[in-house]
Amino acid sequence: MMNRGLLLVLSGPSGAGKGTVCEAYKCRHENIWTSVSMTTRAPRKGEVEGESYYFVTVEEFERKIANDEFLEYAQVYGNYYGTPRAQVEEKIAQGRDVILEIDIQGALNVQENTSEGIFIFILPPSMNELKKRIIGRGSETPESLLTRFQSAYNEINYVSKYNYAITNHTVEQAAHDLACIVRAEKCRVTRVSNEILSLKEEDLNELID
Amino acid sequence: MMNRGLLLVLSGPSGAGKGTVCEAYKCRHENIWTSVSMTTRAPRKGEVEGESYYFVTVEEFERKIANDEFLEYAQVYGNYYGTPRAQVEEKIAQGRDVILEIDIQGALNVQENTSEGIFIFILPPSMNELKKRIIGRGSETPESLLTRFQSAYNEINYVSKYNYAITNHTVEQAAHDLACIVRAEKCRVTRVSNEILSLKEEDLNELID
Repeated sequence: MMNRGLLLVLSGPSGAGKGTVCEAYKCRHENIWTSVSMTTRAPRKGEVEGESYYFVTVEEFERKIANDEFLEYAQVYGNYYGTPRAQVEEKIAQGRDVILEIDIQGALNVQENTSEGIFIFILPPSMNELKKRIIGRGSETPESLLTRFQSAYNEINYVSKYNYAITNHTVEQAAHDLACIVRAEKCRVTRVSNEILSLKEEDLNELID
Repeated sequence: MMNRGLLLVLSGPSGAGKGTVCEAYKCRHENIWTSVSMTTRAPRKGEVEGESYYFVTVEEFERKIANDEFLEYAQVYGNYYGTPRAQVEEKIAQGRDVILEIDIQGALNVQENTSEGIFIFILPPSMNELKKRIIGRGSETPESLLTRFQSAYNEINYVSKYNYAITNHTVEQAAHDLACIVRAEKCRVTRVSNEILSLKEEDLNELID
């Protein structure tokens, strides 16, 4: 019997670097599967159905909400975005680890909708560094920078809802911490029951003959 | 403020390799401190006070029992053996990780005597392999081998009392798993409160000026 995969939920304030950490981890670990979100917004140039997103109509999305088919969903600027539950559960049942890289509200929704899930919060090394990283992206006006920064500052309070916090000093170190969390979680006694069962299935009397 | 060290309690059936795994881990990690046991048995040739053991009289040991000075203790073949509580707590308060490599009964006693402690069980890859390892030590008579093997088989049931189980396929892999558990435990949200506090202490108004 195969052990179930892990459901890793990675989030943190904007600018903390969860996307980069997630990518660095995925480069080194083949067993990970990244959930593809579903959205009602129109595809942008170059976006591929089933890779970038699953693109559906509002009616279809709302029917899925009614059927409890999302691990989490939200409406942003009039468009729906959500994580379809079925594909995640299928991969986990196949023994693959699934990573959801989502915002904090999404992570809290996942917490409500599943008993599984390892919730990991990516922290910036300092607020000053976070500020530099947000500015470094270069796409912000002074006003939106301020809003984004204040929001990040407040979001840090949600860390207490998570299981783990990784401080992103460098991408390498943060991806290594993430790998350690995955490895450690696979060693949890509650998850190694198959190994223990198979040990106990060996017949003591045969062995000691 | 410094984070507290971890109290790692490593045990498992005889022959599973906890001693070797522990040594391999310690070679690579300087922050670890190994607890020195206290005993009432006479020093053997070459044993050094305070390194091999603390050697004390029965009266002294029993006075310490009465004063609740042990994290765990046991009587084996008429001699007392125990883990002094004070030295462990001192190192942990200094931010050092402490490893106790003890038998299962000892580990269960530690569980009763402290609210800290990460309990890690070392499993053999198979009972057949465990048998080979016990035989490989060469010091056993067929009868003592049988007893030891049966006892190991029964001890595996105690894994459910532990937090983690590491299957010791190879010493390298098992020591790596142990290192991952240590790293992951240090990322637990309950243990990174200092980092989070220091983030929140940065003055938002100064930063956004």
